[in-house]
Amino acid sequence: MASDEANSKAVDDAEQLVQSEDPQHPSNLICELCRKFYALGWVTGTGGGTSIRQHDHIFLAPSGVQKELMKPSDIFVMDFNTKEYLRKPSVLKPSACTPLFLAAFTRGAGCCIHTHSQWAVLVTLLVERDFGQSACFEIEEIEQIKGIGKGRGKVGNLGYHDRLRIPIIENTAFEEDLTESLEVATEKYPDTYAILVRRHGIYVWGDNVHKAKTQCESLDYIFQLAVEMKKLGLPWTTRASEISDI
Amino acid sequence: MASDEANSKAVDDAEQLVQSEDPQHPSNLICELCRKFYALGWVTGTGGGTSIRQHDHIFLAPSGVQKELMKPSDIFVMDFNTKEYLRKPSVLKPSACTPLFLAAFTRGAGCCIHTHSQWAVLVTLLVERDFGQSACFEIEEIEQIKGIGKGRGKVGNLGYHDRLRIPIIENTAFEEDLTESLEVATEKYPDTYAILVRRHGIYVWGDNVHKAKTQCESLDYIFQLAVEMKKLGLPWTTRASEISDI
Amino acid sequence: MASDEANSKAVDDAEQLVQSEDPQHPSNLICELCRKFYALGWVTGTGGGTSIRQHDHIFLAPSGVQKELMKPSDIFVMDFNTKEYLRKPSVLKPSACTPLFLAAFTRGAGCCIHTHSQWAVLVTLLVERDFGQSACFEIEEIEQIKGIGKGRGKVGNLGYHDRLRIPIIENTAFEEDLTESLEVATEKYPDTYAILVRRHGIYVWGDNVHKAKTQCESLDYIFQLAVEMKKLGLPWTTRASEISDI
Amino acid sequence: MASDEANSKAVDDAEQLVQSEDPQHPSNLICELCRKFYALGWVTGTGGGTSIRQHDHIFLAPSGVQKELMKPSDIFVMDFNTKEYLRKPSVLKPSACTPLFLAAFTRGAGCCIHTHSQWAVLVTLLVERDFGQSACFEIEEIEQIKGIGKGRGKVGNLGYHDRLRIPIIENTAFEEDLTESLEVATEKYPDTYAILVRRHGIYVWGDNVHKAKTQCESLDYIFQLAVEMKKLGLPWTTRASEISDI
Repeated sequence: MASDEANSKAVDDAEQLVQSEDPQHPSNLICELCRKFYALGWVTGTGGGTSIRQHDHIFLAPSGVQKELMKPSDIFVMDFNTKEYLRKPSVLKPSACTPLFLAAFTRGAGCCIHTHSQWAVLVTLLVERDFGQSACFEIEEIEQIKGIGKGRGKVGNLGYHDRLRIPIIENTAFEEDLTESLEVATEKYPDTYAILVRRHGIYVWGDNVHKAKTQCESLDYIFQLAVEMKKLGLPWTTRASEISDI
Repeated sequence: MASDEANSKAVDDAEQLVQSEDPQHPSNLICELCRKFYALGWVTGTGGGTSIRQHDHIFLAPSGVQKELMKPSDIFVMDFNTKEYLRKPSVLKPSACTPLFLAAFTRGAGCCIHTHSQWAVLVTLLVERDFGQSACFEIEEIEQIKGIGKGRGKVGNLGYHDRLRIPIIENTAFEEDLTESLEVATEKYPDTYAILVRRHGIYVWGDNVHKAKTQCESLDYIFQLAVEMKKLGLPWTTRASEISDI
Repeated sequence: MASDEANSKAVDDAEQLVQSEDPQHPSNLICELCRKFYALGWVTGTGGGTSIRQHDHIFLAPSGVQKELMKPSDIFVMDFNTKEYLRKPSVLKPSACTPLFLAAFTRGAGCCIHTHSQWAVLVTLLVERDFGQSACFEIEEIEQIKGIGKGRGKVGNLGYHDRLRIPIIENTAFEEDLTESLEVATEKYPDTYAILVRRHGIYVWGDNVHKAKTQCESLDYIFQLAVEMKKLGLPWTTRASEISDI
Repeated sequence: MASDEANSKAVDDAEQLVQSEDPQHPSNLICELCRKFYALGWVTGTGGGTSIRQHDHIFLAPSGVQKELMKPSDIFVMDFNTKEYLRKPSVLKPSACTPLFLAAFTRGAGCCIHTHSQWAVLVTLLVERDFGQSACFEIEEIEQIKGIGKGRGKVGNLGYHDRLRIPIIENTAFEEDLTESLEVATEKYPDTYAILVRRHGIYVWGDNVHKAKTQCESLDYIFQLAVEMKKLGLPWTTRASEISDI
């Protein structure tokens, strides 16, 4: 019976991790973000996902759910140090993106967003065709570039004359197998806040929810613009290409 | 008077088939889905439709109504075994899609969605022009393919390296006349959860509402991407074409 | 003072023409439709308009207002027989579309919608370039054609194998000057429920609100599809062109 | 303590500048407009901004916030004569667009809107490629042109046969550095209500909120149409080009 009581207390504690009246609580924020992302076409079907780190707690949207219908009770919570689940909804599966979200948190992120945005997918296809499989996406002299931070530990955002570079990694059969190449790419591009995944989508992170979300929006804006520029025969860069391997 | 009472009871019973406080009740779900589908451009005008099977009851959206304005009282209910209507709103016509929905339910579906999505229509036109009238739509190595199940009775979803094939049938003057060719196509492609109809739209089904809806979204995402790829001169398949007759 | 009382009663009567708790009342319907049309991009800026006939009362959206913010108190009411305003909001201007709406009502319509839809405008430009200024828009073998009625006094809708023809008239400096050519075009195409206006938009009507709105949606769907088909090099008609003057 | 009381009163006064139950109050209007502009894709990320002048008070959306989440308490208020802030939220930064908004107010505007609309950006790129860096955007014979005013102090709007000209200025590294060239362009085009900024977006103003917003919508409609026309090979002007330097 003591054991039953302890179990019951553990369940209560786990519930309190995700239930809050505060709209800024991570489990409420994840649900609100996912509804917004569904409207933007970023998490169609059950694709994409979002995770927030608050102190040592990682809040994760589950796998295989309709993102616009998510409730706080669907959220997984993991301990950042032990990587053990503090809360695991019994009927749901954890997201296959979890190791990729953890890689972003290890690099200092407070929030990480994964989308299947069609603009991101088309950009990876266009780069491959025009510059080769190992190239990254590059664009310059678009005002919205100023929506992207200079890099971890650096103050302020990119300038209008800075070239934006987003590395592209190759897709794999299983999402968790992207982790290693994501880490390699972020070592090669230490200032990046995003990794494109060929034929798949993008991972975008930021110091906090505000920065992750606005950087994800700014990048999606730039990818959409870049695709429209290609349709109209307009070049992405005006200076000589400096496309490099990753 | 006994007869009047019996009639009155029958009407009450029929009403109870579609009136429920439970948002998960099929007649509430159909109305909510149709509002969503209207916003997605799938049921413009009075096009498209949705049907849910619950045990031996088939719930059907009516013909000729504005789908975003539908109410539970507009829903038809049919007995799956006798194919007789248990509830038939007197001022409305049953959907011409009914025999196609029934064909899906006979194949084990729990929900079937019919859309007039423009991306689906454009894909059928592009396949006809590039591969001939008897070809099916084929694409591979797009992450969203993983949103589609492997097939009835099979566990899990398609993989990233699997080629997605959706058969295309020719349109007919009357929607109900599509039934036979839909059945032929599903015999030839026993694992498919969807049939494209040339110059018309698509039928998508799934074991339950969740699966039908997320598969329909995933396919629509893929069709939109495929149309954009064509505009940009990007091929749908990288390996040698294996286009086959249906 | 008797005159004051009479005036006050006249104002009260005029107010009652547009104030109703019934969501199906024309002044409530016009506001709801205009909000929907704004979301569809049909009445951007202050463009477009809508009018409903109920018995001998014509309800008209005013000129120059933000259509998504319209209130019943903004609505004009005209007597169909005398063409005199029964209600005229003092701070607003009547719509320049009024004579065109009246032309539709004279032809038996119960509701008429005018949009500046970009798909309609692009279709008029494409027809002019490819077929000449006097041609009408023609398309065939698209399922959504079945959303358009056969014509005034005829039972039922166009079939899948029927060719849809929408006459195009030339734009004029002043909207009211379109009336004569709209009437000429409807005499030449007596079965049409819509007139395209070159570089301007479209007028669509129907026997009632339901039919006008769903026909307008079906046509807009077809115009969008037609523009996308042009981008992809797909022809609008498969049989020999029968383009004719209007 | 007298000083504390004075401080406390000053804070109260500042709060009253932005807190009102009236939906037409500038601080409420700015928040409502920004939510609408977010839905239109005009203020993605934290881009774009809006400002309203009411008598001698200038109400300004802050820099770096998610525009769809803005609250009246986020609004800056400046005295138009002294250019000093009457209210300055301590945790927020004033918009870098402020000098550009002030330039519009100096020219008599009551409201000024800055968007990063992709259609505006694409139009500036297309003009540069086809007509050279110093050209302005020109289009004619599109009905929606009638949504734009003739110019400050002039009565009425442009006509269908008038050519719409929107000057384009070159982007700068810092937004405030656009002010001088904006002023030069408005001197050269004294009737314009808008200035395009190459690779950046647009500034649109009007005598009041209604006119600024509907002119911004009409222009965005025209830019989107112009981009689609380019994709379809349709020319923006039918008469001989009169493209001129600014």
